Amino acid sequence: MPPSIITLTTDFGASDPYVGEMKGVILGINPEARLVDLTHGVQPQQVLHGSFLLATSFRYFPPGAIHLAVVDPGVGSSRRALAVQAGGHYFVAPDNGLLSHVLWELGVRGRSRGQVPSLTGLKGRVRAVALTEPRFWLHPVSSTFHGRDIFAPVAAHLSKGTRLEELGQEVSSLFLYAAPRPRRRRDGTLDGRVVHVDRFGNLVTNVREEDLPEGALAVTVAGRTIRGLSRWYSDVGEGKGPSLLAVMGSAGYLEVSARNASAAAALGVGRGEAVSV
Amino acid sequence: MPPSIITLTTDFGASDPYVGEMKGVILGINPEARLVDLTHGVQPQQVLHGSFLLATSFRYFPPGAIHLAVVDPGVGSSRRALAVQAGGHYFVAPDNGLLSHVLWELGVRGRSRGQVPSLTGLKGRVRAVALTEPRFWLHPVSSTFHGRDIFAPVAAHLSKGTRLEELGQEVSSLFLYAAPRPRRRRDGTLDGRVVHVDRFGNLVTNVREEDLPEGALAVTVAGRTIRGLSRWYSDVGEGKGPSLLAVMGSAGYLEVSARNASAAAALGVGRGEAVSV
Amino acid sequence: MPPSIITLTTDFGASDPYVGEMKGVILGINPEARLVDLTHGVQPQQVLHGSFLLATSFRYFPPGAIHLAVVDPGVGSSRRALAVQAGGHYFVAPDNGLLSHVLWELGVRGRSRGQVPSLTGLKGRVRAVALTEPRFWLHPVSSTFHGRDIFAPVAAHLSKGTRLEELGQEVSSLFLYAAPRPRRRRDGTLDGRVVHVDRFGNLVTNVREEDLPEGALAVTVAGRTIRGLSRWYSDVGEGKGPSLLAVMGSAGYLEVSARNASAAAALGVGRGEAVSV
Repeated sequence: MPPSIITLTTDFGASDPYVGEMKGVILGINPEARLVDLTHGVQPQQVLHGSFLLATSFRYFPPGAIHLAVVDPGVGSSRRALAVQAGGHYFVAPDNGLLSHVLWELGVRGRSRGQVPSLTGLKGRVRAVALTEPRFWLHPVSSTFHGRDIFAPVAAHLSKGTRLEELGQEVSSLFLYAAPRPRRRRDGTLDGRVVHVDRFGNLVTNVREEDLPEGALAVTVAGRTIRGLSRWYSDVGEGKGPSLLAVMGSAGYLEVSARNASAAAALGVGRGEAVSV
Repeated sequence: MPPSIITLTTDFGASDPYVGEMKGVILGINPEARLVDLTHGVQPQQVLHGSFLLATSFRYFPPGAIHLAVVDPGVGSSRRALAVQAGGHYFVAPDNGLLSHVLWELGVRGRSRGQVPSLTGLKGRVRAVALTEPRFWLHPVSSTFHGRDIFAPVAAHLSKGTRLEELGQEVSSLFLYAAPRPRRRRDGTLDGRVVHVDRFGNLVTNVREEDLPEGALAVTVAGRTIRGLSRWYSDVGEGKGPSLLAVMGSAGYLEVSARNASAAAALGVGRGEAVSV
Repeated sequence: MPPSIITLTTDFGASDPYVGEMKGVILGINPEARLVDLTHGVQPQQVLHGSFLLATSFRYFPPGAIHLAVVDPGVGSSRRALAVQAGGHYFVAPDNGLLSHVLWELGVRGRSRGQVPSLTGLKGRVRAVALTEPRFWLHPVSSTFHGRDIFAPVAAHLSKGTRLEELGQEVSSLFLYAAPRPRRRRDGTLDGRVVHVDRFGNLVTNVREEDLPEGALAVTVAGRTIRGLSRWYSDVGEGKGPSLLAVMGSAGYLEVSARNASAAAALGVGRGEAVSV
């Protein structure tokens, strides 16, 4: 059996030892675990940003992988801690909406207007437990770093074969944000948002290929309109200024990019900016 | 036997290939070593900053782990290179004070006012050798990157079972900085310092829980006074501006934080700032 | 047999999940691969910058290592994708000049003034195939992220023992930039360039030790002249301002540095700056 994979997604950045400490705790429990950083560049305390990055990436790991995700502004308070099995993968994360995009991609929809959909009827597809068994934690548990003291050791135990139901009590609902989808106006225009800006300055939107209207495409952001969809980043001419283009990005979402330049810098926009299609 | 863990702590940052080169050298000697980045975000050439981060983190790794630490402004000069066994862990580092906090946490105290305490009498608890055996190095040894040419190969050999005393001559004293402790005034006030600012803008001080005076707590930094100790980061109301709070951080040191914001930015302060309690 | 090493060199930075996705794809194909980040700090889309960093670093890994390099502004267009065996190592990269410095260090020289030297006559020393066998790719292949969909899975298959010639058709020429060498003037002065600025602000030039003229050395950059070669970074006195020095860096190239400070900041210069020796 190949060693278990544990991925790590946090807002801890690249310069603090917090991620290293989590890895130390994991290797103390399961020295054979394979640790892979997914990203530690989630914007500080931005739960939905982390949710998006995790959802676009986890599927590239083999089934059975354990995804440890910690963006946790409410650490120490009464928010629950979770282990979730869904889509053949495992997720260990706070119950604060961090799994919203993942579960949305796996077909979990809210049944009401509330933010806490019931999992009833999804049995078999999604199973979730609240982490209530302290014997799988690192003691003493700090009140400010459950990533190291609760989530990491629980992920390590999962990777050694501990079953989900041993970790705590099964829960029947989760805190999820409403699916962050673009809205369609009467005239067919889609109102979307920039949900991520990558290192290249590509503006990744929440508009998926299947959302795109038929016919000629026009994408407007920050007062600039781009006509047509490019096939790749160098599929536009090089003009005097940065040449803007719209392209279907590698995560399956519409991106606004600039040839050999940063669209974010060229347009002066960031995460949260409105995009209409 | 599980594979040996080698952690890496440097001031090399995330964008240069220096850390990758060290890992290549290690894997060439011990292909089974488990490599874990502790942090590469030590401020350039700030030995005491690295010392603090290493000391708060190494204990989360299982005993027997080898901690390779390189913050080395004097590389190439006459400063010694060390391998140290202490507290059940191994450390490979320049003899420039980088192990000050680690050894202080393990109970090594200077015996005089000097910065070079004697290790005599600590035998069994702390053993240290100077790296003087060139057969464990990578040749030719550059004069500017001993991390790659001396420290990394020595750590790799240690991880393969080479004994400390094979690596060089035992030493009886080390270069250590005086324990960077807060000072207590006559009126009971503690004068501490900010020793680390993390990605969230939390101001980590050198004040430990056992240092705190009894009774009502007031923490003053940059002219602002915070009353009382919060239990966790979201344990204060959200006001108009950033809500400052004092909290015992995950490393066991007092932190000044801001709810959902950066205390460092709110107060305009950084590492080295005075804090009185 | 020790597990195969796959290094990763990209311009993806530290904050996006792109590198993590590549690792997920690799581990899905070869769960035993040893993954090592060489650097992800190549300046966005700067092929020659990545080429330099890869060339100075790959040799520190043991023979047989596979070096996956993705700096790929032309992704999706007609540029070829390559797997190359050279100097006992493997390289998987776009055919856009990213291997220029590596092959130059291994002795591959252009035979004409063109940028596409023939490999004829180098058989045995350098073998290269175009990646034309889709059965080794991840499907569907996106048009914007071949790092994940073509290069990563190909590297994973190589690490499992797939032979080079199975991956695609052998090619007899590559796109390589002219060797980026300093020029020697009639009076013996060398005209070089800063090809990398590291985290410490060291200015790494393209001048090698064997290029240096005999006799007294004077290095001029940004109007400042440094006389003599220091042996290491602390080999100059500490003056009022930053003390500039010239030193042979760990990669074998001349560096302009400042004692305990950033030469880049002190001189206000960056990559591409002219240096005369």
